[in-house]
Amino acid sequence: MEVNTDKKAEPSGDIPETVGRDDEERLAREAMAVRLHAYAPYSHFFVGAALLGSDGKIYTGCNIENASYPAGICAERSAFASAVSAGCRRFLAIAIAGGPEDKDRASGRTAVLPECPPCGICRQFMREFCGNRFPVILVTSEKQFRTVTLGTLLPDSFGPDVLSL
Amino acid sequence: MEVNTDKKAEPSGDIPETVGRDDEERLAREAMAVRLHAYAPYSHFFVGAALLGSDGKIYTGCNIENASYPAGICAERSAFASAVSAGCRRFLAIAIAGGPEDKDRASGRTAVLPECPPCGICRQFMREFCGNRFPVILVTSEKQFRTVTLGTLLPDSFGPDVLSL
Amino acid sequence: MEVNTDKKAEPSGDIPETVGRDDEERLAREAMAVRLHAYAPYSHFFVGAALLGSDGKIYTGCNIENASYPAGICAERSAFASAVSAGCRRFLAIAIAGGPEDKDRASGRTAVLPECPPCGICRQFMREFCGNRFPVILVTSEKQFRTVTLGTLLPDSFGPDVLSL
Amino acid sequence: MEVNTDKKAEPSGDIPETVGRDDEERLAREAMAVRLHAYAPYSHFFVGAALLGSDGKIYTGCNIENASYPAGICAERSAFASAVSAGCRRFLAIAIAGGPEDKDRASGRTAVLPECPPCGICRQFMREFCGNRFPVILVTSEKQFRTVTLGTLLPDSFGPDVLSL
Repeated sequence: MEVNTDKKAEPSGDIPETVGRDDEERLAREAMAVRLHAYAPYSHFFVGAALLGSDGKIYTGCNIENASYPAGICAERSAFASAVSAGCRRFLAIAIAGGPEDKDRASGRTAVLPECPPCGICRQFMREFCGNRFPVILVTSEKQFRTVTLGTLLPDSFGPDVLSL
Repeated sequence: MEVNTDKKAEPSGDIPETVGRDDEERLAREAMAVRLHAYAPYSHFFVGAALLGSDGKIYTGCNIENASYPAGICAERSAFASAVSAGCRRFLAIAIAGGPEDKDRASGRTAVLPECPPCGICRQFMREFCGNRFPVILVTSEKQFRTVTLGTLLPDSFGPDVLSL
Repeated sequence: MEVNTDKKAEPSGDIPETVGRDDEERLAREAMAVRLHAYAPYSHFFVGAALLGSDGKIYTGCNIENASYPAGICAERSAFASAVSAGCRRFLAIAIAGGPEDKDRASGRTAVLPECPPCGICRQFMREFCGNRFPVILVTSEKQFRTVTLGTLLPDSFGPDVLSL
Repeated sequence: MEVNTDKKAEPSGDIPETVGRDDEERLAREAMAVRLHAYAPYSHFFVGAALLGSDGKIYTGCNIENASYPAGICAERSAFASAVSAGCRRFLAIAIAGGPEDKDRASGRTAVLPECPPCGICRQFMREFCGNRFPVILVTSEKQFRTVTLGTLLPDSFGPDVLSL
């Protein structure tokens, strides 16, 4: 088992690897698929996220709600939790797919969704591990998405550097 | 891919399956192991959790901190996030191992730790999926642990039933 | 302005002051009243909390929800936030009143509510400042309530002592 | 007691009132002052926030940490919790002052601080009540600050409109 280095994560957005159209489509598909696992009995809003690690693996997550709403976890953080727990701390891109629960679940994977931008908590969570150029892929269908960067979504961030006491 | 049922989770603590000594030891070992993946540059407190699903799989998680402390995720919820995202919603037991970062990382797996009870957030999170008899295994070493139940840790809980509006 | 002492809070539950029936009724009334300020457009579940500081003041709070559910704050933590921000860190008791939004708002203060126990997050939050004997008053009407203790609600807690690295 | 309207908050950033230099300086002073009440025994990072309501009142808050780091509350949300609990839901501006704990507490109010931008959780929390033009005043001393807008800090936000199912 890999032993971590205890250093604060280096922003992976600054690493040279790029994500091609193939990777983007793969992430979009995975985000659409894991979305169907969402546990969202309160909001009925289903979200899935697929995170590409620098190890080449895709880590997926869905939103998980709680009767005490603030105790829930969003899809993006679920995906990061899987990755970090598996020992991966450098990331190349994340895809997010979200929208109202499908009336017909069978159609879930082929639905056309609205863009679902990450909430502020998840932007903050990503910032710990990812740099300004980290691509956030807003998925509307398996073939349609728009890519923005974390730096655009969370400018002037409260990152690890702020705490250098 | 399994499609969820949209119903609120039935407390898995009420299911008949029991967890034997072998399972407990396996969970203790896994919790000790994943603990070394903790991202805890702020607290230097490393926690690992291993969750046994009714599908027979073990889902693991570690704590993941953030410069904005409230944005972090505990080990227990990391493990549940992995499980639910994988489509598992019924659970047989969880093991938790936590303690100060080891001076000598190589010794991490053989350390003797203090008992690390789950925080209130994680008890609340578990409550959504687990019943009162759900076993929470507090690990102090791979062979030593004490098992309590969720009902003991979170009596008079604010569970899904409270929200039946 | 009082300057804090930077020490970890001493559990106020261990201080000798007791709370009489008059105080309990006053807290119950205040919890019922502030409950009507709840911002709960998603759950339609309205909660109010009234917290008695050792300075003799009552600090009140309601739940405040967010489109990203995990970003919301419960009533109990709202009350504590007001108190701590005002410089108070020792507490004698908290009353909690919660239930579905009233169809007829005018009747909000005279409603008979179900018992609304604090969620695990709030138990954890209280634990930082309050000891095992801290009274938690579960309000069902201005005159009816049941008092439990924090120690009962959160046994084997993950408190500040656990982090003594 | 004012009865709330149960409608989702209208973004207060769209209201015509403007905040003048006097108000900004007053908010900066209040943020610096309440900062000294921070309960931050884990990060030793002290933050204060002062929030101007459309009712003309200033609501203040400090950060409140917890042994379980994710259970803590930031200064900005503390200030909003006080305001909403008091029945105020429309806001004109917020000032934020944060930095390492002062070696000499007496000098706390005259310190020159680094800019402390709100974390992603707090941006998300504000978004529920405030519009894109809502001014966020980043305070470095009682007389020095820089004002940005919420829309700049949280573009493409996951706001209440996304959940219109």
